[in-house]
Amino acid sequence: MPETSAVSCSAIPRPTLERLPRYLNYLRTRRAEGCEQTSSSAIAQDLKLTAIQVRKDLAYVGSGKPRTGHSVSELIDQLESFLGYDDAKDAVLVGAGHLGQALLAYHGFADYGLNILAAFDTDEALAGQRIHGKPIFAADRLIHLTARLGAPLGIITVPAKYAQDVCDQLVSAGVCGILNFAPVHLTVPDNVLVRNVDIAAQMALLSSSLRELHIKRDS
Amino acid sequence: MPETSAVSCSAIPRPTLERLPRYLNYLRTRRAEGCEQTSSSAIAQDLKLTAIQVRKDLAYVGSGKPRTGHSVSELIDQLESFLGYDDAKDAVLVGAGHLGQALLAYHGFADYGLNILAAFDTDEALAGQRIHGKPIFAADRLIHLTARLGAPLGIITVPAKYAQDVCDQLVSAGVCGILNFAPVHLTVPDNVLVRNVDIAAQMALLSSSLRELHIKRDS
Repeated sequence: MPETSAVSCSAIPRPTLERLPRYLNYLRTRRAEGCEQTSSSAIAQDLKLTAIQVRKDLAYVGSGKPRTGHSVSELIDQLESFLGYDDAKDAVLVGAGHLGQALLAYHGFADYGLNILAAFDTDEALAGQRIHGKPIFAADRLIHLTARLGAPLGIITVPAKYAQDVCDQLVSAGVCGILNFAPVHLTVPDNVLVRNVDIAAQMALLSSSLRELHIKRDS
Repeated sequence: MPETSAVSCSAIPRPTLERLPRYLNYLRTRRAEGCEQTSSSAIAQDLKLTAIQVRKDLAYVGSGKPRTGHSVSELIDQLESFLGYDDAKDAVLVGAGHLGQALLAYHGFADYGLNILAAFDTDEALAGQRIHGKPIFAADRLIHLTARLGAPLGIITVPAKYAQDVCDQLVSAGVCGILNFAPVHLTVPDNVLVRNVDIAAQMALLSSSLRELHIKRDS
């Protein structure tokens, strides 16, 4: 249930925006398999979408040759460029616990032009250390250092009860985009975007979708 | 961009389903603040939705008293019950690297009735150990043990290039719901659901939404 706040930020419909990384992952997989050309119908079939939907979605990223097919590599380039994967983006992370440390170790961010500059934690034993190459600072330096670093993005991996306070600090430090892993609703000003990644809720949605599927089949 | 495959599994519209955990987190936050009664309009305002949307969404979980307001606790109970958080659900995890270990440590799953029974990894040094209380087994025991445990859910936290193979093994062991953290498109039979949690893509979507927002403001 990743969600941006309801600030209207683009002409592109949100469901389309949400599907773009899925197209990108799919096309990278196909390219790795040696596939050079594809079509909206082929993409639609593999991703269980309709060809019309795929054509409409890809038209937003400037790709409009439905009848002659698509070059897989060109389509990947267009998607990467549209999603801004070729611009570096700096972030700070707050909460260097298990999940926070896993994100500090995650090489996937670099592939998308994203860079975690530093992390903050209330655990004084962590301050001054480097974890997976990233410096960890005491939590009371969060606002000052984040403002000085000029990071536009913040990642929140603290327990739910601290998340709003951390969010407020990030906002006052000038952060305007927040990726929130805490299972809590964050209140932010209108010029700040929040995306929620509630991992346990994803599992619960999967589980409840399965149950509905089985009820439907059994009935 | 978490996505279930396109199997139609319920009469509830997917955007509604995706919003339900968000309502739940919001209401839990409000309850912790001492709030006992709320209304669709109040929820809509705080979550930047429309009141009509909120009313429609909540009607799916059996809550339909828009004019007299809602008991916050009752609404939480209805949402938890609807989402199946009161049924325990068993999972196995494949890939006990940084992210996998962070998920093994994550207490949030238990709050949602989810339980990771065991993890698997190709690193022989890990096999036989317990990490955060969960047993780790060698990867070559994945199919046999998962089938024996009867786990309906699988969590994939292996590198992208191994994800499809792991997915195939989970499916052959009888898993019918997969939470996939690898940034890759997985092909599954129609009776298996996949939800993708591509963390780096979430950051990229946040970043690109911010850019669009700023372009719009500057123009």
